[in-house]
Amino acid sequence: MSEKPTKIVKPRPISGYPEWLPEERIVELGWIDEIRAVFESYGFASIETPSVEEVDVLTAKGGDADKEIYTIKRLHEDPDAKSEARVALHYDMTVPLARYVAQHYGDLVYPFKRYQIQKAWRGERPQEGRFREFLQCDIDVIDNDNLSIEFDAEMPAIAYEIFQRLNIGNVTININNRKILQGFYSGLGLENVTQVIRVVDKMDKIGPDGVAKLLSNELGLDDAMVGKCLSLAEIKTSDSGFVDKVTALGVKNETLDEGLRELEFVMNALSHIPPGVVFADLSIARGFDYYTGTVYESKLADYPDFPSICSGGRYDNLVSSYMNKSLPGVGFSIGLTRIFVKLLKEGKLDIGAKSPTTVLVAQLPETKRELAASVAQQLRSRGINTEMYHEQAKLKNQMRYAERKGIAFVWFPPSEEGAMHEVKNMATGEQSSADLLSWKP
Amino acid sequence: MSEKPTKIVKPRPISGYPEWLPEERIVELGWIDEIRAVFESYGFASIETPSVEEVDVLTAKGGDADKEIYTIKRLHEDPDAKSEARVALHYDMTVPLARYVAQHYGDLVYPFKRYQIQKAWRGERPQEGRFREFLQCDIDVIDNDNLSIEFDAEMPAIAYEIFQRLNIGNVTININNRKILQGFYSGLGLENVTQVIRVVDKMDKIGPDGVAKLLSNELGLDDAMVGKCLSLAEIKTSDSGFVDKVTALGVKNETLDEGLRELEFVMNALSHIPPGVVFADLSIARGFDYYTGTVYESKLADYPDFPSICSGGRYDNLVSSYMNKSLPGVGFSIGLTRIFVKLLKEGKLDIGAKSPTTVLVAQLPETKRELAASVAQQLRSRGINTEMYHEQAKLKNQMRYAERKGIAFVWFPPSEEGAMHEVKNMATGEQSSADLLSWKP
Repeated sequence: MSEKPTKIVKPRPISGYPEWLPEERIVELGWIDEIRAVFESYGFASIETPSVEEVDVLTAKGGDADKEIYTIKRLHEDPDAKSEARVALHYDMTVPLARYVAQHYGDLVYPFKRYQIQKAWRGERPQEGRFREFLQCDIDVIDNDNLSIEFDAEMPAIAYEIFQRLNIGNVTININNRKILQGFYSGLGLENVTQVIRVVDKMDKIGPDGVAKLLSNELGLDDAMVGKCLSLAEIKTSDSGFVDKVTALGVKNETLDEGLRELEFVMNALSHIPPGVVFADLSIARGFDYYTGTVYESKLADYPDFPSICSGGRYDNLVSSYMNKSLPGVGFSIGLTRIFVKLLKEGKLDIGAKSPTTVLVAQLPETKRELAASVAQQLRSRGINTEMYHEQAKLKNQMRYAERKGIAFVWFPPSEEGAMHEVKNMATGEQSSADLLSWKP
Repeated sequence: MSEKPTKIVKPRPISGYPEWLPEERIVELGWIDEIRAVFESYGFASIETPSVEEVDVLTAKGGDADKEIYTIKRLHEDPDAKSEARVALHYDMTVPLARYVAQHYGDLVYPFKRYQIQKAWRGERPQEGRFREFLQCDIDVIDNDNLSIEFDAEMPAIAYEIFQRLNIGNVTININNRKILQGFYSGLGLENVTQVIRVVDKMDKIGPDGVAKLLSNELGLDDAMVGKCLSLAEIKTSDSGFVDKVTALGVKNETLDEGLRELEFVMNALSHIPPGVVFADLSIARGFDYYTGTVYESKLADYPDFPSICSGGRYDNLVSSYMNKSLPGVGFSIGLTRIFVKLLKEGKLDIGAKSPTTVLVAQLPETKRELAASVAQQLRSRGINTEMYHEQAKLKNQMRYAERKGIAFVWFPPSEEGAMHEVKNMATGEQSSADLLSWKP
C-alpha cells in the first residue's frame, strides 16, 4: 500500500539537543521522579505552562536572554492568512511563572507554592553545560504581600534532600544575602552598588586580583575600599560565624544588619544538615538584578570548575512587568540536563537495564497462550512489570533477549493450569519453583 | 535594586495552547502517571526525543502534515553567523520514533518496545479536539524482521487497561485489518484500492449514502460493487462472528483470508475484556497509507461524534525514509490533551485539591520552630506530603488556607517535645490526639 521513498534522509544528532538511549533515559526519568517526589513532599503543586509565550511577554524585562530566544513560524505560512500571535519558546521558567501568576492571580491561593519540570530552549552556542534544549526543575513560592523568611531556609533543605536522593556525589550549597552586599557597599559610601556587585560576581572566573583590578580601574575604588570588598567576599563559614567576621570589618548600615540577620536565621535553620554541605559564602552575588535577599548557588564538589547546578534566591518583584503589583517570592532551579550530561560523560551514572520489565514470561511450545497471558496479568496486577515473549523462538534466544535488556527474572509457566511454575534469576542463574500468587522479585 | 518597568504587558491566553490551574494539573499529572505505569507494566521503556527534528527529516514522507509544521528561528539572528541546522518542532511521535530507530539502530534490542509521552505542535486552526500544542502518549513495538501478531492483540488490552484506570467513562475500541479491505476490494476486481479505502474511511462524516455516491461517481464502481463495499463496511461484531459475515459476501482473495485470520486471532485474544468494549468494525480504515495490517480506533462512548481518542495500527515500513531497511511495528497513540479538554469542558473530571499536601503543620505561638520542623520531617520520611505554615497568623487563617487548598489534615504540634500531638480532619471537623510515629492519613 505504501511506496518506497526515492531518497533516504540519513538521520544525525542535532547539536545542542541531547537524546538518550532507553537505559540512560531510565536513569533520567528516575531523577525526575525523585525531584518531583521531594517537591510534592513539601507541598508544592505541579504546573505546566505552554512551551511558548508571546514575544512581548518574554522580552518585557529586557536583558541578555533576548538574543537567545527562538521564535516559531509555520513552514508554509499562508501569506493571506491573518498572522498568528507572535510567539517564542520560553528560555527559562521564571518569565512563564510571572506571567502565569499575573494571568491567574485571582484563581490561586497564597502562598502559592508551585514546581515546574519542563524543557526550555536557548539559541546559544552548544558547549559544556550549555544546550539548546534542556530540562529545568524549578520550585518557587509566591506570596501576596509578605513572604516568611522561613521559606528562604526551606529551599536549601529541599535542594539538599534532592541531591541526596539523586546520588550525584557531594554537593555544596552556598548561600548569601544581597542585602549584605547592598548594605556593605552602601555603608562603604559606594554609589554604584549594582556595578560593584556585578564585578565581585566575577570572582569565580577572574579571581581576586582580576576583581581588584576592575574595582579600581573601572569603578575608581581606592585601595582601602577594594580591600574591604575583597575581605567581604573571602568570608565563608559553615555556620553563623560570618556575622562576627563581617562586623569586624567595621561597616555600619541598616540594610547590612538586616541581611546579616536574615542569613543568620537561614544558616541556623539548616543546622540539621551534616557539615560540609551548606556554607554562608559572601562572594555569591547571582548576577540577575531581580534578586533582593537570600541567594543560592550549588556546586558538584568533585567538579569545582563546573558551573552552578542549582541556583536561585529571593525577589520582590516577580510579576511587576505583567500586573500592577509587586509580589515577593523565593525559589531555585535545578539544571537537570546540565548535571545529567556531566555525570554521564564522567561515567558516574549507574546505567543499567534497557527496560522497566522485571519478569519475562517465556513462550514454551507446550504452554497455551491463554495460560501464559494469565500468568503475566496476575504478576502485573501485583505491581510487577511483566512482559511476554511473543515470538516462537528457541529458549536460548529468549534468555539472551532477557539478558540483553537487563530483565532480572524469566518465568516458565507450566504446561497446564495448576502445575508447577518455575522462575530463573538471571543474575545468579538459579532456577526454582515459584508460587504465582505470592512470588516477589 | 530593580527598577519598575515603564510598561505593563498584560498577559492573556494564547489560542491553541492550553494551560491548567494547579487543581486541574493534578488530575492531568495523575493521568500521565497511570498511563506510564500501564505502559511500563507491559515492559515498554520510556524514550524522549528532542522537540525538534531537521526539516528534511520531518518532511521526508511528504503528506498533509507538512503545512502544519512550525520551524524555529532565533529572534535576533546574526546575519553573519553560519546558519544553524534548519529544524522544526515535531508534529507527532511517529516521525521522531522512525528517526530514533534508524539513528540508534545498532544500540537497541529487538523487539524494541518504547513509549513516549511528549508534547507535539501543529500550526492548525484551534477548534474542538485540535490544539497547537498537545500531549500525546505513544506506545510502539518495532522488530527487526518479523513481528508477532500477538503484539497486535496486546495493544488493545493495554489501551483498555488505561481507559479503566483513567475513569473516563465507557470507551469502545474498534479494530479492523487493512488486509481485509485490501483483499476484499482486490477480490472484487477493483484496481484503485487505496482510493476506495480513502472513500470508505469517510463513512463517519458523510454516511453510507455519501460514500455510495463517491464510489459510483468518482471511482466509477457499478451498483453491485458499491453494494458489496457498503455491506463490508456495515459488518461490526463483538467477537469473531465477522468472519462468517465476510465469507457470506462471496469474495475470494488470499490477502482477505490472511486479514480475516489475523483479526480473528486478535479478537479471540481479547475475549477476556468485558462485552461492549472491543469490536471488529470493518468500516475502520485509518486514512494513513503506512498502516498495512491491524488498525485501531477508540471512541468515548458518551460522545460518539467526538473524534477518535486513541488510534494506531501495524505498519511494515516505519524507517524506510531514514535507512535501507523495512522494520515492522505496531502501536497506538492516546490523544491525552484532546480527552482531557473534552471531559474538563463537560464537567466530567474529578477536580479536587489545589495542592499535593496531605498534612499542614500549623504554626502555634507556643511551639518552637525546630519542633514543628521535626514533626514535618518525620511525617515526610514516612511518605506523607507535609507542609509547614510558615507565617505567623491567626489559627483561623491557617485553617482557611488548608481548606482553600484542599489539604486534608491540620497537625498541631505540642508546645514541647514528648507532649501530645493533635490532628484535625478537615472533612469531618474531628480533632483528636495522634501518635507522630504511627499516625496515618
